[in-house]
Amino acid sequence: MQFRTVKTLNGLNTSQMFETIDALKTQPSLARFQFRASNTWINGGENRSTIKGFYGAGREDDSRTEPFVLTNGEPPVLLGANEGANPGEFLLHALAGRVTTPTVLQAAARGIHIEELSTELEGEIDVQGLLGLDNAVPVGYRQIRIKMHIKADCPDEELDELLAFAQGHSPVCNTVCRPIPVTLERVKDQGPD
Amino acid sequence: MQFRTVKTLNGLNTSQMFETIDALKTQPSLARFQFRASNTWINGGENRSTIKGFYGAGREDDSRTEPFVLTNGEPPVLLGANEGANPGEFLLHALAGRVTTPTVLQAAARGIHIEELSTELEGEIDVQGLLGLDNAVPVGYRQIRIKMHIKADCPDEELDELLAFAQGHSPVCNTVCRPIPVTLERVKDQGPD
Repeated sequence: MQFRTVKTLNGLNTSQMFETIDALKTQPSLARFQFRASNTWINGGENRSTIKGFYGAGREDDSRTEPFVLTNGEPPVLLGANEGANPGEFLLHALAGRVTTPTVLQAAARGIHIEELSTELEGEIDVQGLLGLDNAVPVGYRQIRIKMHIKADCPDEELDELLAFAQGHSPVCNTVCRPIPVTLERVKDQGPD
Repeated sequence: MQFRTVKTLNGLNTSQMFETIDALKTQPSLARFQFRASNTWINGGENRSTIKGFYGAGREDDSRTEPFVLTNGEPPVLLGANEGANPGEFLLHALAGRVTTPTVLQAAARGIHIEELSTELEGEIDVQGLLGLDNAVPVGYRQIRIKMHIKADCPDEELDELLAFAQGHSPVCNTVCRPIPVTLERVKDQGPD
């Protein structure tokens, strides 16, 4: 009887990771993913997304039996009742993941064991832009600062390399620092009249 | 005895809304906000943010007694166990809020009553970039499409104007279409040695 050893590093199944990388090298079209969200406005600054299916690795994923349900809200000072974190805060959370996960993946590929990793994010925004009060004021975040604390079994220089990789190859500087096309289209109802 | 009438439209207290707008016109510095998130890596593609305090309207906010806790995860095909929506999906949720809330606010300011509003979002990504397999492949979303369904008590032309405002004045096209500076800095431990 033979046991198959599952190798893990940083909580990742590295055998599966290298198999995935090999598969993508042979068939790059498997790397195409489409993620989706359906959002419904509730009231005021409250709205809710359900997230379940996505396309990736050449097929429609069916691993999720229940959807993830996420609620945007606003604090009282922005006319809400703290129904949830606000969209700007959800964006910071997304960025935290988009810095952390590539760092952890890249560390695993290099054989580095990460002991601790945390990030602190701060985003500066002037809501005059959002409210349309002053066209000279940029809408959205003026700047986002991310501070990372990381402890791993490698020299400091390697940690800096890892971070440079994470900054260059993570989607952070691609959905935020680099402009990407976003289209917003109103779907016209085809009513009975 | 006198009752104060609270006027609401689209679930927003419009008296408070116009008072806020007036206050910001008189003292624009009140419009400066800083949002924050603290994220801790758990394992593999799982990491968790806590979000509570923020600065805005000239002071540190204290309206939240409990933090919002948000968990990033990855599906099995991306080496995870669906511990939560993934960072790319959280980004779509943030964008949904950042299109919806300004639309609702602007409608309220114009006296338009919104009956229904929902959005469908799709983001295309090629994970070769993320994994560093092909430097020619852009990292992060190549494109995001947002479709909005909206029903309100106004003519179609006004809805289109509202959408044009939302696209021009919402933070969507500022944290995504427009590059903004993101800094990522490693905090060096000042250990005892």
